[in-house]
Amino acid sequence: MISTSQSMSEMRACTPAAGSAATVLGIDIGGTNLRLALGSDAGAILARTSISLGEDKSPSHIIALIEQCVARLYADSGQTQHGLKAIAVGAPGVTDTENGIVIATSYLLGWRNVPLRALLTERFQVPVVIDNDVNLAALGEYAFGQIENLRDFAFIAIGTGIGSGLILNGGLHRGQLWTAGEIGYMLVPGTDIAPVERGIPGALEQIVGGEGLRQTWKRRWSAADTKHPQDLNASGIFEAARTGDLIATSITESAAQTLAFAIYNMAIVLNLPHFIMGGGVGSHPVLLEATQKYLNAQNARVQPRLIASTLGTDAQLLGALRAALIHTHA
Amino acid sequence: MISTSQSMSEMRACTPAAGSAATVLGIDIGGTNLRLALGSDAGAILARTSISLGEDKSPSHIIALIEQCVARLYADSGQTQHGLKAIAVGAPGVTDTENGIVIATSYLLGWRNVPLRALLTERFQVPVVIDNDVNLAALGEYAFGQIENLRDFAFIAIGTGIGSGLILNGGLHRGQLWTAGEIGYMLVPGTDIAPVERGIPGALEQIVGGEGLRQTWKRRWSAADTKHPQDLNASGIFEAARTGDLIATSITESAAQTLAFAIYNMAIVLNLPHFIMGGGVGSHPVLLEATQKYLNAQNARVQPRLIASTLGTDAQLLGALRAALIHTHA
Repeated sequence: MISTSQSMSEMRACTPAAGSAATVLGIDIGGTNLRLALGSDAGAILARTSISLGEDKSPSHIIALIEQCVARLYADSGQTQHGLKAIAVGAPGVTDTENGIVIATSYLLGWRNVPLRALLTERFQVPVVIDNDVNLAALGEYAFGQIENLRDFAFIAIGTGIGSGLILNGGLHRGQLWTAGEIGYMLVPGTDIAPVERGIPGALEQIVGGEGLRQTWKRRWSAADTKHPQDLNASGIFEAARTGDLIATSITESAAQTLAFAIYNMAIVLNLPHFIMGGGVGSHPVLLEATQKYLNAQNARVQPRLIASTLGTDAQLLGALRAALIHTHA
Repeated sequence: MISTSQSMSEMRACTPAAGSAATVLGIDIGGTNLRLALGSDAGAILARTSISLGEDKSPSHIIALIEQCVARLYADSGQTQHGLKAIAVGAPGVTDTENGIVIATSYLLGWRNVPLRALLTERFQVPVVIDNDVNLAALGEYAFGQIENLRDFAFIAIGTGIGSGLILNGGLHRGQLWTAGEIGYMLVPGTDIAPVERGIPGALEQIVGGEGLRQTWKRRWSAADTKHPQDLNASGIFEAARTGDLIATSITESAAQTLAFAIYNMAIVLNLPHFIMGGGVGSHPVLLEATQKYLNAQNARVQPRLIASTLGTDAQLLGALRAALIHTHA
């Protein structure tokens, strides 16, 4: 179940001598997988691994998996854990970075106010940083992405749902209660304005998120009007739109225009010219190009520019490594 | 044409000894009036004055008026200009604070890339800070407003038009190209989605701004349906709504709901729980209460709270004094 790779194109190669050199750990807790990377003090990746969470998503089980993976990483890298200086962990939910607590996450059922920093500090006896996974992805794009000198941008992640991380003046803006960037609830022309219901995707998310797109397709599908199956994911819808399917085109255009409104609003409120688009839905060229087209048509004084993420699913893991490094050098 | 007052309830009283103690100047260039305050190094206001700009809004005329007012302020306060340590100026437009340039302002016709900092430094031979007036108002509310320990909030100014200043983590967020907070162009349910036209008020501004409200009233007015005149300003419309006028109520409710959408969007993107409402339209209790009602109905996880500005039109002048003081102590 464990897969390990030693190299990453985004970072310089490194073949460390065996020993107890200074190292940091980046950890990404996803909804289904746990991913870890061991980094050198100089910012190189020494080893990485991932493992399926399985059914049990309890904190104790995940910490046991982390311990198992960390042992494997050090064995693979030829380093010893004595050199470990700091750990940073991304969690898919609201995190209190000041107190190291995962406040809530819908992806890891049952997690409420989990003191993840304390639990991991106890196990590993080093400083631990806890942050939201999309925030760490934004940090990863800031540190390792293809766009240089970008001190102000939003990283927008669209997969099943939608979230964003804000880099303002070269630093993460997390917000007073740690939920900055929750754009899935934004209200723009065409979104439902009904009051928010807990546990239900936000108004924007319903139109732009992967699950919302799948549901919309299912609802609008009719055998007479399309050759595609009634169960189609966002990528399938975008590909169908590309080949001229009318229902798919209508759904894609609606998602693109709605997303363009949201990005335009963020651009004018924060004076943000750049948006890095991540996630399988957000970085899909069909959606990205259609959204850019709507943004251009809006004729804003500063045209927002969409850039597909080059780090892909590695963004949050690299961001976690970066956060651990920052903490080591702070 | 010059009026001077020596006291301000918001700041501690101070009767300085005559002489050349350290002083700072705060200047607010409005669309019709120029206002100045002379402050002590300890943050007290020593004297203030204001003067009408008249027809000539050229930089050279305004600088001549500033010189005239500064001389008067020092005469009134019994201080000498030798103690002047710094000047901060708020201008009603886009300002490049790094280079001290007023890039553009629709209120002072003809101003394009005016190097105001250089012009004033030449005259007064002290450091000069240039900033947008709404940004300085936000800084004024941060430093002297009634709400303590508010390190994250937006100051929303609604008069003829609409603008906002963002205080994030205890500092002004101006944006990469100095235009953060330009919410008059935000697109929310019910706003026009036509492309932006230069020189035309933004989609949100048309519904919520004072001039937009006046135009809407004029367009919807009919002698048969209201006892109020066809030319009515925003305050008049709000007061008519309070007494049950149907057209005024409809216009006010529409403005309040639209404003609530915009504030809700800012609240979720930036995780901002507090909004200080300024300007004659923005701080009017009828609009403020109706907007808060719509915000409450939205059922957000963190309910945005609207607070009427207590500084009123003094916010930007006090913010300018503060900016000058910060510069002195930097």
